[in-house]
Amino acid sequence: MSYSVAVSGASGYAGGELLRLLAEHPDVEIRTVTAHSNAGQPLIQHQPHLRSLAHLTLQDTTPEILAGHDVVFLALPHGQSGQYTDALGDAALVIDCGADHRLVDEGDWDAFYGGAFHEPWAYGVPELPVGGAKQRERLVGATRIAAPGCNASTVSLSLAPGVAAGVIDPSDIVSVLAVGPSGAGKSLKTHLLGAELLGTANPYAVGGTHRHIPEIRQALRAAGATGDIRISFTPVIVPMARGILATSTARIADGATDAQIRDAWEQAYAGETFVQLLPEGQVPRTADVLGANTALIGLAIDRAAGRVVVVTAVDNLAKGTAGAAIQSMNIALGLPEGRALTVNGVAP
Amino acid sequence: MSYSVAVSGASGYAGGELLRLLAEHPDVEIRTVTAHSNAGQPLIQHQPHLRSLAHLTLQDTTPEILAGHDVVFLALPHGQSGQYTDALGDAALVIDCGADHRLVDEGDWDAFYGGAFHEPWAYGVPELPVGGAKQRERLVGATRIAAPGCNASTVSLSLAPGVAAGVIDPSDIVSVLAVGPSGAGKSLKTHLLGAELLGTANPYAVGGTHRHIPEIRQALRAAGATGDIRISFTPVIVPMARGILATSTARIADGATDAQIRDAWEQAYAGETFVQLLPEGQVPRTADVLGANTALIGLAIDRAAGRVVVVTAVDNLAKGTAGAAIQSMNIALGLPEGRALTVNGVAP
Amino acid sequence: MSYSVAVSGASGYAGGELLRLLAEHPDVEIRTVTAHSNAGQPLIQHQPHLRSLAHLTLQDTTPEILAGHDVVFLALPHGQSGQYTDALGDAALVIDCGADHRLVDEGDWDAFYGGAFHEPWAYGVPELPVGGAKQRERLVGATRIAAPGCNASTVSLSLAPGVAAGVIDPSDIVSVLAVGPSGAGKSLKTHLLGAELLGTANPYAVGGTHRHIPEIRQALRAAGATGDIRISFTPVIVPMARGILATSTARIADGATDAQIRDAWEQAYAGETFVQLLPEGQVPRTADVLGANTALIGLAIDRAAGRVVVVTAVDNLAKGTAGAAIQSMNIALGLPEGRALTVNGVAP
Amino acid sequence: MSYSVAVSGASGYAGGELLRLLAEHPDVEIRTVTAHSNAGQPLIQHQPHLRSLAHLTLQDTTPEILAGHDVVFLALPHGQSGQYTDALGDAALVIDCGADHRLVDEGDWDAFYGGAFHEPWAYGVPELPVGGAKQRERLVGATRIAAPGCNASTVSLSLAPGVAAGVIDPSDIVSVLAVGPSGAGKSLKTHLLGAELLGTANPYAVGGTHRHIPEIRQALRAAGATGDIRISFTPVIVPMARGILATSTARIADGATDAQIRDAWEQAYAGETFVQLLPEGQVPRTADVLGANTALIGLAIDRAAGRVVVVTAVDNLAKGTAGAAIQSMNIALGLPEGRALTVNGVAP
Repeated sequence: MSYSVAVSGASGYAGGELLRLLAEHPDVEIRTVTAHSNAGQPLIQHQPHLRSLAHLTLQDTTPEILAGHDVVFLALPHGQSGQYTDALGDAALVIDCGADHRLVDEGDWDAFYGGAFHEPWAYGVPELPVGGAKQRERLVGATRIAAPGCNASTVSLSLAPGVAAGVIDPSDIVSVLAVGPSGAGKSLKTHLLGAELLGTANPYAVGGTHRHIPEIRQALRAAGATGDIRISFTPVIVPMARGILATSTARIADGATDAQIRDAWEQAYAGETFVQLLPEGQVPRTADVLGANTALIGLAIDRAAGRVVVVTAVDNLAKGTAGAAIQSMNIALGLPEGRALTVNGVAP
Repeated sequence: MSYSVAVSGASGYAGGELLRLLAEHPDVEIRTVTAHSNAGQPLIQHQPHLRSLAHLTLQDTTPEILAGHDVVFLALPHGQSGQYTDALGDAALVIDCGADHRLVDEGDWDAFYGGAFHEPWAYGVPELPVGGAKQRERLVGATRIAAPGCNASTVSLSLAPGVAAGVIDPSDIVSVLAVGPSGAGKSLKTHLLGAELLGTANPYAVGGTHRHIPEIRQALRAAGATGDIRISFTPVIVPMARGILATSTARIADGATDAQIRDAWEQAYAGETFVQLLPEGQVPRTADVLGANTALIGLAIDRAAGRVVVVTAVDNLAKGTAGAAIQSMNIALGLPEGRALTVNGVAP
Repeated sequence: MSYSVAVSGASGYAGGELLRLLAEHPDVEIRTVTAHSNAGQPLIQHQPHLRSLAHLTLQDTTPEILAGHDVVFLALPHGQSGQYTDALGDAALVIDCGADHRLVDEGDWDAFYGGAFHEPWAYGVPELPVGGAKQRERLVGATRIAAPGCNASTVSLSLAPGVAAGVIDPSDIVSVLAVGPSGAGKSLKTHLLGAELLGTANPYAVGGTHRHIPEIRQALRAAGATGDIRISFTPVIVPMARGILATSTARIADGATDAQIRDAWEQAYAGETFVQLLPEGQVPRTADVLGANTALIGLAIDRAAGRVVVVTAVDNLAKGTAGAAIQSMNIALGLPEGRALTVNGVAP
Repeated sequence: MSYSVAVSGASGYAGGELLRLLAEHPDVEIRTVTAHSNAGQPLIQHQPHLRSLAHLTLQDTTPEILAGHDVVFLALPHGQSGQYTDALGDAALVIDCGADHRLVDEGDWDAFYGGAFHEPWAYGVPELPVGGAKQRERLVGATRIAAPGCNASTVSLSLAPGVAAGVIDPSDIVSVLAVGPSGAGKSLKTHLLGAELLGTANPYAVGGTHRHIPEIRQALRAAGATGDIRISFTPVIVPMARGILATSTARIADGATDAQIRDAWEQAYAGETFVQLLPEGQVPRTADVLGANTALIGLAIDRAAGRVVVVTAVDNLAKGTAGAAIQSMNIALGLPEGRALTVNGVAP
């Protein structure tokens, strides 16, 4: 069976990556691609790398045009997904790559986003520990899925095993991320110009203002964290088009042994294809996951500092967004989970 | 008066930056440049950007050739400076850009470097708080100076004011640095190849093994830290030839107010030309300090995380190494401290 | 049926790309991977992005170990392939990614390479016009195939249609290429260090010394060029890990109309999947072909300069080397030509 | 004596580089900086790397505010300079970094720019051969100076010596340039976003449409070219913030010997500080001129191709624009020509 698919926001970076991956998916027919200001133009004008989709034309992003597909992907700015949901009917599987349906707590939404609050959907990070289970279980048969924030899922996957096992203390987490500018979208802002980014490292949202912070807290809470969850979170844009290299540290819980610590991550991701703990002494590079659906995790225990250090590499557009969305779609539809997704990066 | 100068390690990156800056210094005559395997070759072959020094030929790095200058810069791999020191006599000012004369504690040396321990020299970070004074005072009239490790001085300058004022807790510091590969020197290693570094973020020395850790602890101790000083330190190589963007966080000390915290940094660096605290809400980019002798510091207070976040940009070769060395030379010789140094970066 | 495959040079860049593509090939079993100095080590240590091949161990590159496979890929430095060929027997398909079997003319080999001359094999650029036909025809059923030089095939594909149709003059071609450093291989040379390549453009082999020049002349001769073929060829390394952007120009032949010129390229590549002429007014970026097997060609006619300008983007490791090799293998074995190859790039 | 200076367009890239260089100029007082939409804001907000100018506020760009200075720099989009000129009076030295006063021929202006034509001013490339003399002579005492287009001056300096000496044929020049995006200014266009430029090579203005073409033809005509001057000119944006690496080739004139060819460039630039011919066999990198006022030229003679190949590296913002402007100012005012300018690049 072939599922008909619509992708909104198809002229942007997340939309483009959805299409790149869906173009190789044997069970999917990309029937409709939509955009706002670019409607009416050929898709290939905005995504010149997607040669196999050169026949597609961008349509307007309206509920009517999106309706009637088996799967609808929303790759829209936050705050815009809600208006489409009602019109899409019960039958369709809707996957939102924006933030609108991620947060459980309305107070978090108000504090970090603002505007109308929307109900939370199943969270599209299948490998994330949830209590004694995995997020995957909630995705089976789901009809509404919220794909994760790329930085949030990277940090959550980094730390959830330790939190779930009680071997690290969630009350004083520090995460610093080297990120590529594609995560900020195809938006015309001076600080995103090439001349501003080439050859330089640019921090932003310093001091606890980044919108992915409540999403991380929520994921760690779901994984089993008790008490306060506090995160110092600093992203730094570095000169690579894609990729997230998250360095996350948390204090070692009292009495946790090195074996117990390492075991927490090994158990959590044993058998997972797309989240892999590297052998002791190894750390990942973002090049290793370029274009891949893989999160690669390096774990070190620094007894002198009293902290676990977790370094995780993710392609923000692939496993961080579009890959997670398609992996979740595969689960929801009962397809093989890894269909159209690869574990191998494009390197060098 | 013109001081005669010799620069060893002149075919490397630190040596090249020393020469770039010294070439504009009106009180200095670059008389001798030396190297090991490249001795006998024109300097310009190894430093093709130093057009004004095209007449110089690399000589062998021997005590005899280095002797007899007013100032000798050693830009050699660690463990090699000591053998030259004795032969250089009492008159000369010797500035070591290597690690050999930085550490006070022989145990630290053994644990992180190994080999023969050398006596510590005056530490070439003039702005660093030392007790109630500054490191600058120890450099006046000094004849032996240890230029700092680039990562170490960046982190030390980031945190010393808060430590000295008692507004942050030095027992649980986390520093993550985005660094350019020139900090690793002109060494033929696979992981430093361009194809390995372009478009990717590469962590290394994860988990507390980086050699600059004891140097930071020592600087913070000198600044007034009491009790345990513990640092989780992770450098990440990113695709920029030069630059350090250090994100350092420490827990806010009990009872410290926002005003007290900000005041600590403002007081510490008031009147300093080359270490500047940016206004509230601003953070630096490495582009802002490219080629400059400036450390730019952005400070944020994250009450939700309970941490101060300090983001500091430094050019690893300039203020991080060669600029610090020349600034220290200026102080030692009684010249204007900023001679031949600029606060303005080359951007974009 | 599944073909057993061996890849030599598996720890290098070309070998890594062969493996990345072969890992997704449904008709192939990667049985053996070999290297020289790295033999005995896990493949994943040298190709950390190839997660699906983590179980493979590098063996020694010997004729004995390579023998007995259905397909053997040689990704070795030039001058090394010949010694393996004899031992590989008649049954096997051997595809050499080195230069040893590309050149028809021994004088060219002597002038640009030197050492023992080897017989030319079928040339692995299926879309290249050869007289009134295509190179593809020579690959059907071939048992010995020479994959092209990445720069050479890019320039040859750029100009062959115009030469074959007689609308451009091959006696005064100028090609300037922006190339990524992965084309130079994983070799420890100072000028290939990241610090030397980041933020700078580096020309090399200026003035007619590049080894791909005779290969281009040969391809254009095969396409139908008569008289002198003269090429000014200048590669410039730019800060991208992969990719070739070749700007090639040739004088318009007397009397050739714009329609005739454009028609030459349109006819030559009509129906080709992996070599695409872009619509008038469009030019490609290397990002559009990253990881893809596509050569994208932009064509402009500059009457004021009297020249046709052809700008072609190719991924040097994919369509430039490993993709061409696998496409040729598919043809030789009678498999669908595009199996395991994609036309879509990874962008941004 | 200190000259009062105003810089318009001070929030842009060319304006910023003028200010970076002027800040170190001992004979100049930067009194006024102006902008359009950013007027009223602190300069440092737009040029955070210019720490020594943090006290300046952007004023409106009006003739009244610009009037009354000894030197006025116009760094405005083309077509805007003319309106200010009249109001600036006879006393002031006005240096236009835009295109408005570069072209001698109104037909060229109409064909490549359009809008009102303005009288040509003295051309700010002092080293450029003009007949038997140099452009420098026309700058002495000049009160109106047109700084060059960065690409144009790079190519003109590359080829003028050969044209002037008659050793190359100007009727069939090919130039391909690797350029950084800062040359396109701080303009919000999608194709200039970092995510679009990182890791990729992007050609533009292919096929003879670039506006610098008539400027090159004019310079070569002034240098002594006779007959048709025809240039195929293709710029390629590559991932470096600054820099131009121009590869220019022209056919060797009949009978010209290698010695005569090389001698043409050697003679033309003998004694020049800021335009240097490299020794035989050497070619420059853009890193070698980063931040410097130097044009470095590598010359190769390719007899097989019948062409001279000239590879020239220039910092588009420094020698390409702001450095040329200040060098010209120094000449016009009778100051030492190289004041506040350096020949040494910032590398690596």
